[in-house]
Amino acid sequence: MGQIDQAVTRQRTDQRVRIDFQTEPARYRHWRLQVDGDIATLVMDVDEKSALFEGYDLKLNSYDLGVDIELADAIERLRFEHPRVRALVLRSAKPRVFSAGANIRMLAGASHAHKVNFCKFTNETRIGIEDLSENSGVKSICAINGTAAGGGYELALATDYIMLIDDGAAAVSLPELPLLAVLPGTGGLTRVADKRRVRRDHADVFCTTEEGVKGKRAVEWRLVDAAVPGSKFDEAIAARAKELAAQSGRATSMSGIKLTPLTRKFTDDAVEYGTLTVEFDRAARIATILVRGPAAPPPASADAMVALGAEFWPLKLARELDDAILHIRLNELEVAAIVFKSSGDPNEVLAYDRFLDANPQHWLAREIRLLWKRVLKRVDLTSRSLVTLIEPGSCFAGTLAELPLASDRSYMLIGGRDGDNKPPATIALADANFGPYPMANGLTRLASRFLAAPGDLERVQAERGKMIDAETAQRLGLVTFALDDIDWNDEVRVFLEERASFSPDALTGMEANLRFAGPETMESKIFARLTAWQNWIFQRPNAIGEDGALKRYGTGHKPAFDTRRV
Amino acid sequence: MGQIDQAVTRQRTDQRVRIDFQTEPARYRHWRLQVDGDIATLVMDVDEKSALFEGYDLKLNSYDLGVDIELADAIERLRFEHPRVRALVLRSAKPRVFSAGANIRMLAGASHAHKVNFCKFTNETRIGIEDLSENSGVKSICAINGTAAGGGYELALATDYIMLIDDGAAAVSLPELPLLAVLPGTGGLTRVADKRRVRRDHADVFCTTEEGVKGKRAVEWRLVDAAVPGSKFDEAIAARAKELAAQSGRATSMSGIKLTPLTRKFTDDAVEYGTLTVEFDRAARIATILVRGPAAPPPASADAMVALGAEFWPLKLARELDDAILHIRLNELEVAAIVFKSSGDPNEVLAYDRFLDANPQHWLAREIRLLWKRVLKRVDLTSRSLVTLIEPGSCFAGTLAELPLASDRSYMLIGGRDGDNKPPATIALADANFGPYPMANGLTRLASRFLAAPGDLERVQAERGKMIDAETAQRLGLVTFALDDIDWNDEVRVFLEERASFSPDALTGMEANLRFAGPETMESKIFARLTAWQNWIFQRPNAIGEDGALKRYGTGHKPAFDTRRV
Repeated sequence: MGQIDQAVTRQRTDQRVRIDFQTEPARYRHWRLQVDGDIATLVMDVDEKSALFEGYDLKLNSYDLGVDIELADAIERLRFEHPRVRALVLRSAKPRVFSAGANIRMLAGASHAHKVNFCKFTNETRIGIEDLSENSGVKSICAINGTAAGGGYELALATDYIMLIDDGAAAVSLPELPLLAVLPGTGGLTRVADKRRVRRDHADVFCTTEEGVKGKRAVEWRLVDAAVPGSKFDEAIAARAKELAAQSGRATSMSGIKLTPLTRKFTDDAVEYGTLTVEFDRAARIATILVRGPAAPPPASADAMVALGAEFWPLKLARELDDAILHIRLNELEVAAIVFKSSGDPNEVLAYDRFLDANPQHWLAREIRLLWKRVLKRVDLTSRSLVTLIEPGSCFAGTLAELPLASDRSYMLIGGRDGDNKPPATIALADANFGPYPMANGLTRLASRFLAAPGDLERVQAERGKMIDAETAQRLGLVTFALDDIDWNDEVRVFLEERASFSPDALTGMEANLRFAGPETMESKIFARLTAWQNWIFQRPNAIGEDGALKRYGTGHKPAFDTRRV
Repeated sequence: MGQIDQAVTRQRTDQRVRIDFQTEPARYRHWRLQVDGDIATLVMDVDEKSALFEGYDLKLNSYDLGVDIELADAIERLRFEHPRVRALVLRSAKPRVFSAGANIRMLAGASHAHKVNFCKFTNETRIGIEDLSENSGVKSICAINGTAAGGGYELALATDYIMLIDDGAAAVSLPELPLLAVLPGTGGLTRVADKRRVRRDHADVFCTTEEGVKGKRAVEWRLVDAAVPGSKFDEAIAARAKELAAQSGRATSMSGIKLTPLTRKFTDDAVEYGTLTVEFDRAARIATILVRGPAAPPPASADAMVALGAEFWPLKLARELDDAILHIRLNELEVAAIVFKSSGDPNEVLAYDRFLDANPQHWLAREIRLLWKRVLKRVDLTSRSLVTLIEPGSCFAGTLAELPLASDRSYMLIGGRDGDNKPPATIALADANFGPYPMANGLTRLASRFLAAPGDLERVQAERGKMIDAETAQRLGLVTFALDDIDWNDEVRVFLEERASFSPDALTGMEANLRFAGPETMESKIFARLTAWQNWIFQRPNAIGEDGALKRYGTGHKPAFDTRRV
């Protein structure tokens, strides 16, 4: 068991090493976020000594999850705190090095679960950069001043324009295969093949060449967009950033809101947030996320929404839900199933959806929709069984109805419960369920659900705004099972016990296959195909065995491989 | 190491257990192929005692690779020997059992490589059944008279119409996850989600319910097309087969050709076929496939082609190449790279392509194109590095030009060699390179290659029929490297040595990602996504460890799982 494995194990007993996804620019150790008019620069300047775990130094702008958590935070702040930014430059503060990629000693020491979760989060961050460009109008440039190896080049691949210094030495490379016997793990192969459309034989040469590709050939092979002499490098970056900013459709004249720190309280068996509670039943291996509907009606105007800032209910809930999901993923590995519940007034939830719909061009309303899209995608990609229990007093309406739709199954109670005066369970749809929240496959959850019969999709579309009871919801295909009070407890208990009894790995594989029917996109390919292959390779002795390449890297000894091709 | 692992190891030393993909109906032990007018019936009647390896009995129509080899053979014979068949019924001779799926003891004892190769071949056979329907007009029915579990149901999923007996007991099921902690491995999850478009929550229930789903619910959930009472079962099958045959567009009035046995000679380091030779350099871990062009011009007429039958060069070569690829996959696990070479007159190869093009409606010409499509897909899906060496005297033209296009890289010699009077290397394209041979992603190899610049595709299209020299081929993007005689030996040697030095697993993962850029189809999803997840799960202790589900199955002891979700 490597150092990271020990560290992650340790936190389960004394909470000292809980991985925290919350940070803010003043606390960054690895990045500097500079904003100058409509151009932002993110300077990568990794602090060698500030690794997330013990046992390795983050030399040469190599990174671990801690570095990526700061990057993800910075991208969110560009969206919400700096809405005037229209172009983003990623660059390095280290001389002749852009980034050496994911830290190899960290990978060699990490548990399988940590490697897989690290790659997943890093991929999500990369896709966030692409979404920032595509949907928020912040075009991005990567200025590569030297070595961009492995994950360093993969970060560049997430930007719109890659500029490589042409000094006879600087190169882009994906040396994972020749050096480490693993794949480029954060989208590299898919982005090379599908985003940059590098010809497959060129890609083959590139991905097996440890030293990478430089200058003119890197441009010819579409690996970078320009190779620029050192004397003109800064000038060219500035000019290109200006050009991209000028092309952006993002509005220019508003000021942002402050993403204030989340208020969270961690106890042994729960995390308490402002808008939700996570409860852990460790014996049953279940995390229940209870989402609370809004406490007040939506504000009177878009200006009032801006004034509320991070306290605006949909924004606050999205941020807290995102943090809760990441916490479970990385810190609560034993959780087999996440159970979504909610409490509140579904009409109030719909009122918030109408409020956001009424301000479709408002920058903040738009960013909130985009944040929800990303959070819901994070839910889709979480390797835990997902189930929603729709009970009396719940508010799975509009945006919140995406939670049962994102679940592997949903159970809905028919009628009320004896001695309980909560209103019977309903589910309600809104425009939000028919467009703004596509899954990684490019379709809404409802469209993915009703692939077999598009008529069913039209039928539920006609029900928008109505409070749908359990039996109707089952008939419409919106929930898996509508149950009466007599059956409820047994059915739900048996299901959750069963889920905890199955092989965790087989569940992960099955859910990954069943959640994403229909078309594939670059994004879904990264998660469904590349991740799966990497998971396989991350388990193979050729990579992680005592004689494998990850373990032997840097020891002066060559790895010893099982030479059978599979 | 299980029994199969030992068996496979044994054959490498004394050749006793070489897996042979050649068979014929008279030798079938597990299937009976019955043809009655335009309706064929394939009766599954697995001989318990005729397993491919020792250590298990094939009870309850469970199967191993040997059973599937016969099925694949029968499907080929329907195409070539029975061109009048327009509908196919799959059924079982066992009472109250259709098929119990892949044999569990076989899986528990098999090496990782054998499991992966078994699933891949079985998937290819299933896709062959779908291709038979889609492109050859033989519609298929699966008549499920009892239990259809796991791979048994997956076989049904490959047919056009699934009929389940409604007797209160017969059920379809995918019990792999609850019983064995692995996934349905031959396309089941993808076909449930993407082909039959079963709603994701229904699919979740189905795939976690050991006993499966029966009768009316199976129809409602789209798992089968009809549930029919036992008293009407045979009648309903016959009626449906008649209906499907009537709808088929397949011609009705021709007789077939005989797929005569291949002539092969196995020696220690080679396999000699009529149209090609495979040579093994075991120290270097290379298999070289030397393809020979036609010895004579194409026949004068379609009737003359039929008269030639299995001796017709394109058909003979396709069958032999298919056998050679399968032999390397299953029996030569140490081979790191397959090197394609050819010898012959490229003009003659083009003449055969023109001959096939001139008879597009002829059933045999059509079946030969379809066979080549499947063989080339088999090449694409072979987990070995693929390289084509285009040298003087070679004939990579038209259909044979698909081999360099299917390769991870191609090297082409500029000009001639000293003391060698062979004509300089050329490559030539034909219509065959622009349509009839799509990859699993639905695109031709050239379209996949030139995704970045469709203009390049048009540019090479204009070169059809021309003999293209090395430098032009490189400029057009048809080959990876054009090299002169001075550099050739070193470059090729270094490449092949490098390939043999890399991690076999990482190469498999990388190649699987780079070969299939662009769109995904159900077929590419099965191989790229489902297979990758299954490979991962097949390596995890929760499945294959001493306490894992595959090992513990049938022992009376429950498996013990590592409960961390990854």
